[in-house]
Amino acid sequence: MTPEQRFEKLGLTLPPSPDPLGVYKLLLIDDNHAYISGHGTLKEDGTWIVGKVGADLDPETAKLAAQQVGLAILATLKKYLGSLDRVDRVIKVLGMVNAVPDFTRHPYVINGCSELFAKVWGDDKGVGVRSAVGVNSLPEGIPVEIEALFKLN
Amino acid sequence: MTPEQRFEKLGLTLPPSPDPLGVYKLLLIDDNHAYISGHGTLKEDGTWIVGKVGADLDPETAKLAAQQVGLAILATLKKYLGSLDRVDRVIKVLGMVNAVPDFTRHPYVINGCSELFAKVWGDDKGVGVRSAVGVNSLPEGIPVEIEALFKLN
Amino acid sequence: MTPEQRFEKLGLTLPPSPDPLGVYKLLLIDDNHAYISGHGTLKEDGTWIVGKVGADLDPETAKLAAQQVGLAILATLKKYLGSLDRVDRVIKVLGMVNAVPDFTRHPYVINGCSELFAKVWGDDKGVGVRSAVGVNSLPEGIPVEIEALFKLN
Repeated sequence: MTPEQRFEKLGLTLPPSPDPLGVYKLLLIDDNHAYISGHGTLKEDGTWIVGKVGADLDPETAKLAAQQVGLAILATLKKYLGSLDRVDRVIKVLGMVNAVPDFTRHPYVINGCSELFAKVWGDDKGVGVRSAVGVNSLPEGIPVEIEALFKLN
Repeated sequence: MTPEQRFEKLGLTLPPSPDPLGVYKLLLIDDNHAYISGHGTLKEDGTWIVGKVGADLDPETAKLAAQQVGLAILATLKKYLGSLDRVDRVIKVLGMVNAVPDFTRHPYVINGCSELFAKVWGDDKGVGVRSAVGVNSLPEGIPVEIEALFKLN
Repeated sequence: MTPEQRFEKLGLTLPPSPDPLGVYKLLLIDDNHAYISGHGTLKEDGTWIVGKVGADLDPETAKLAAQQVGLAILATLKKYLGSLDRVDRVIKVLGMVNAVPDFTRHPYVINGCSELFAKVWGDDKGVGVRSAVGVNSLPEGIPVEIEALFKLN
């Protein structure tokens, strides 16, 4: 199965690819790499999931929010590359969780995005390196922001 | 016009390129990429703009601070590359705003740097991918720190 | 002397290479680059150094914690590459310090890792670009998380 076919089988719906919130591109191709800007929790209706993890969102809800960020990244890949099949593999993910100071389950939260990528590109090519960290504020009050680097076919 | 000519036309003054605050290089060339360390709000007199965004600095002042970080990055590019014309394009910017927990306008703040780069290298080549996030502390108490990746000619 | 010989002469003991805390790889090779996931303060007994810098850890203790992160990264390099001699140079380090809001000595803390790398690969090839920033929470409550990019021979 191709990445496109694997995504279709998941039965998930993509949000629109976001408009930039400032002076930047959503995706930039440099040789055979696609750099992806920090994406947020964009919903299908164009609004954002907002709130602080550990106060407004519990870990399970935050993990779903991270999956929503992953879906927004997939939407951007499809919009600018035409197809998820253009991606050879995930190289790197940086996941930032807008959390209270004593929060410790960032890896669990960011798995919401990483598990999605693993389902689309497989357990090897869908999994790259990753850092998951806690930040104390994010644009629009979103609970999760994720940037990524992909290798292209 | 060249990037150098476009910068000159802006009428802005570069601060000195910063000295490293620790064990790192300000700029490293890897093949045709120039990696730039996190830069801060260095002023012409060698001191730093300090303060927390949302408490000590309002968004407009913080945006000017981010422009000052952009100027420090330009100073480093000129010092180590000789000329802004050596840069082909902006690939990536990571902007970190030292903000209060309910701050939400990080993209507006980091535009202070991104708009400067767009003026120097143009609306295509001066604009790359970007993440803008909130952090709760930065070296020396600066309000903004920005790292970047450029492609060289 | 080779990097392996220089490390041996330091008389330091490596912790085990960590298991991933989520869906990611510890190290990924892309052409002649090795991307390293965010690593934490893993001790020889497999437990973590925990605590907030500026509250539970003073700067000197936090610097030692950052050195421990550096040792965990060396353990990962040895596990997946076979030898520290496979690394040509350090390209980039991103150091995140889990600190109180008024902390300002992030560069001093992250030097704990950077000085270790400089001892292993030398003052030129062991030193790359770097950003050091403050975050308000990290996985497992660790005080320091560091990700890195190396160039391979």
